[in-house]
Amino acid sequence: MTDDCPHFHVLKTDSDTGARRARLHTRHGAIETPIFMPVGTQGTVKAMTPVQLREIGAQVILGNTYHLNLRPTSELIAELGGLHRFMGWDGPILTDSGGFQVFSLAKLRKLRDDGVAFQSHLDGKKLFLGPREVVDIQSRLGSDIAMVLDECPPWPCERGPCAEAVARSARWAEQCLAHARDTGFFERGQLLFGIAQGSTYDDLRREAAESLAALPFSGYAVGGVSVGEPEDEMLKQVAATIPHLPAHKPRYTMGLGTPPQMLKMIALGVDMFDCVLPSRVARHGLVFTPDGPLNLRNAVHTRDPRPISEEVVNYTTQFSRSYLRHLIQAGEILGCTLLTLHNLHFYLDLMAQARAHIEAGDYASWHRAWCARYEAQ
Amino acid sequence: MTDDCPHFHVLKTDSDTGARRARLHTRHGAIETPIFMPVGTQGTVKAMTPVQLREIGAQVILGNTYHLNLRPTSELIAELGGLHRFMGWDGPILTDSGGFQVFSLAKLRKLRDDGVAFQSHLDGKKLFLGPREVVDIQSRLGSDIAMVLDECPPWPCERGPCAEAVARSARWAEQCLAHARDTGFFERGQLLFGIAQGSTYDDLRREAAESLAALPFSGYAVGGVSVGEPEDEMLKQVAATIPHLPAHKPRYTMGLGTPPQMLKMIALGVDMFDCVLPSRVARHGLVFTPDGPLNLRNAVHTRDPRPISEEVVNYTTQFSRSYLRHLIQAGEILGCTLLTLHNLHFYLDLMAQARAHIEAGDYASWHRAWCARYEAQ
Repeated sequence: MTDDCPHFHVLKTDSDTGARRARLHTRHGAIETPIFMPVGTQGTVKAMTPVQLREIGAQVILGNTYHLNLRPTSELIAELGGLHRFMGWDGPILTDSGGFQVFSLAKLRKLRDDGVAFQSHLDGKKLFLGPREVVDIQSRLGSDIAMVLDECPPWPCERGPCAEAVARSARWAEQCLAHARDTGFFERGQLLFGIAQGSTYDDLRREAAESLAALPFSGYAVGGVSVGEPEDEMLKQVAATIPHLPAHKPRYTMGLGTPPQMLKMIALGVDMFDCVLPSRVARHGLVFTPDGPLNLRNAVHTRDPRPISEEVVNYTTQFSRSYLRHLIQAGEILGCTLLTLHNLHFYLDLMAQARAHIEAGDYASWHRAWCARYEAQ
Repeated sequence: MTDDCPHFHVLKTDSDTGARRARLHTRHGAIETPIFMPVGTQGTVKAMTPVQLREIGAQVILGNTYHLNLRPTSELIAELGGLHRFMGWDGPILTDSGGFQVFSLAKLRKLRDDGVAFQSHLDGKKLFLGPREVVDIQSRLGSDIAMVLDECPPWPCERGPCAEAVARSARWAEQCLAHARDTGFFERGQLLFGIAQGSTYDDLRREAAESLAALPFSGYAVGGVSVGEPEDEMLKQVAATIPHLPAHKPRYTMGLGTPPQMLKMIALGVDMFDCVLPSRVARHGLVFTPDGPLNLRNAVHTRDPRPISEEVVNYTTQFSRSYLRHLIQAGEILGCTLLTLHNLHFYLDLMAQARAHIEAGDYASWHRAWCARYEAQ
């Protein structure tokens, strides 16, 4: 295996931390990393138009294989020209494989050696996702970055079942890769990432990472984090995995996190993040500021003429906390839109700052100071 | 009384119908009429940002005195710099007086000779709206066009109670005007419209219109229409009122209607419309086209790659009926946003077409042809 990767270029490696500044090329354009990817589960980043996503600097968004395949179905999306055209987003799209739903919909699925049998959470209809199926679905969606099928174990997890999940995920990963090769996936310019599981067992994390690293995936994710474990445990798992993944390929931690968590993981060498947190909490009135989160439902904001933040400036900045609180209290859709826009921009802007500080060579001190201020509240 | 009106200029009167092309000047800019005004009950046109409203050509929007005074309160809005600044809309705003809530919240209010006592629909708190109160509230909100307090009788309505409502509304109108004069309302450049009631009684409609016309209101509304009566009855009531209102001042029918209803009322000489219909039905998947409305929930649209309309082009046009249907079926906020944007644009565009055809001198034939196509479905 060489250190050459045609679609990923590390532009600068930080001397004090594991952070790096890189560029990931996809068939729908380049992604500057480290990057946060807004989540668009059902073919829309909730409450955002594509033009609003562009305006806040979104470079790549997520779609969900499990959800889209149930409704409106991947066949329909393919018929309508693929997910990009369907949802009016011409930038890169990453789709997860449905592996996370193995964890989150545990009561509605049955694990088998050849894949996962689900009952639809919408209408009870039966659905089977195996390694071949998830590659075919992501082919039909037209994902720029597809994920292999994996088994995401819960936390905590006994060593025995965890070792089984790692072994099963390794087999599925290999089968996904083989099926992608057989079906022209890479010729179409689609990328495929492996996912390393292993829960809290350092040796299983290492085993998972090494077995995936031996295969020519386009990039690698750390899976099975942010499933309920404490933050130090989460960081420990990422730290236990990263050294065993190829340094010349992108690294992605799935489904997290808070702003400080992302900055700490960048210092460990992570390039990509996704999380429903900023958009989900926005719909309940929680917004991010450099001084920590604010709950706009609190009465203290009732007459406050100030914007959410003077420093993170976007379309929402023109509105007072008082007005935004009124919208949330009144259950107005515009409240969801404006707070989602702010929170996603806050995350994207934080990544832009991180990239600039890696380039400037002061990432270590900057991210410590940023976290200290954010957590001082 | 002269035929001079400093804030309203009739630019052209149609020779075949009562339609006219005019310009209404407010302290937040001019309004080209005939015009449709999107409704922003609680300080937001539901699901729309101010910039989206501008993009679809909104010239003036509505706020609601009753609702805003309950939450967040007119005092708070005044403290935050008035309704324009509060909601980030720098164009004209018209506010209704709470008179319609005399009708729509009939179970929660008590009519008295000096005004209406409400119980808040939010928390049961007591609230009194009299002629003075509605002027003061609309002063605090900073409305460009305020409405007098009126009693909107239900349909059908006995002659006796209707005559009482007309008499009471006339007294309240006079008291509103006096209080506005006493409190510097007109010096601040705010406009005040009278509202003519009278239900289905032509002579009461005439009496209401004439008593209001004798007073120097900035404009006149036809109230008590679109409260459940059949369409021909509604048109008959408007036709019975218009001739008795001053021709040199703006005329406004409150709370309606369908696209053909608006075109027919323009032919009767109406200049201004507002209605929750286009935004409310959008949230349930109903969209307007020149060939009549479409319900995107219907299965026939499942795989339809076409836009809602090839003719009425806006931001939503880039999305297929299939995608829009998916959003609505999945309960996604973006569905509300995109369909609301289309429907409001459809209404605004229809008014722009009406203005152009009045200017071109072919309004009569154009609006008949437009309605025939729309209703042919």
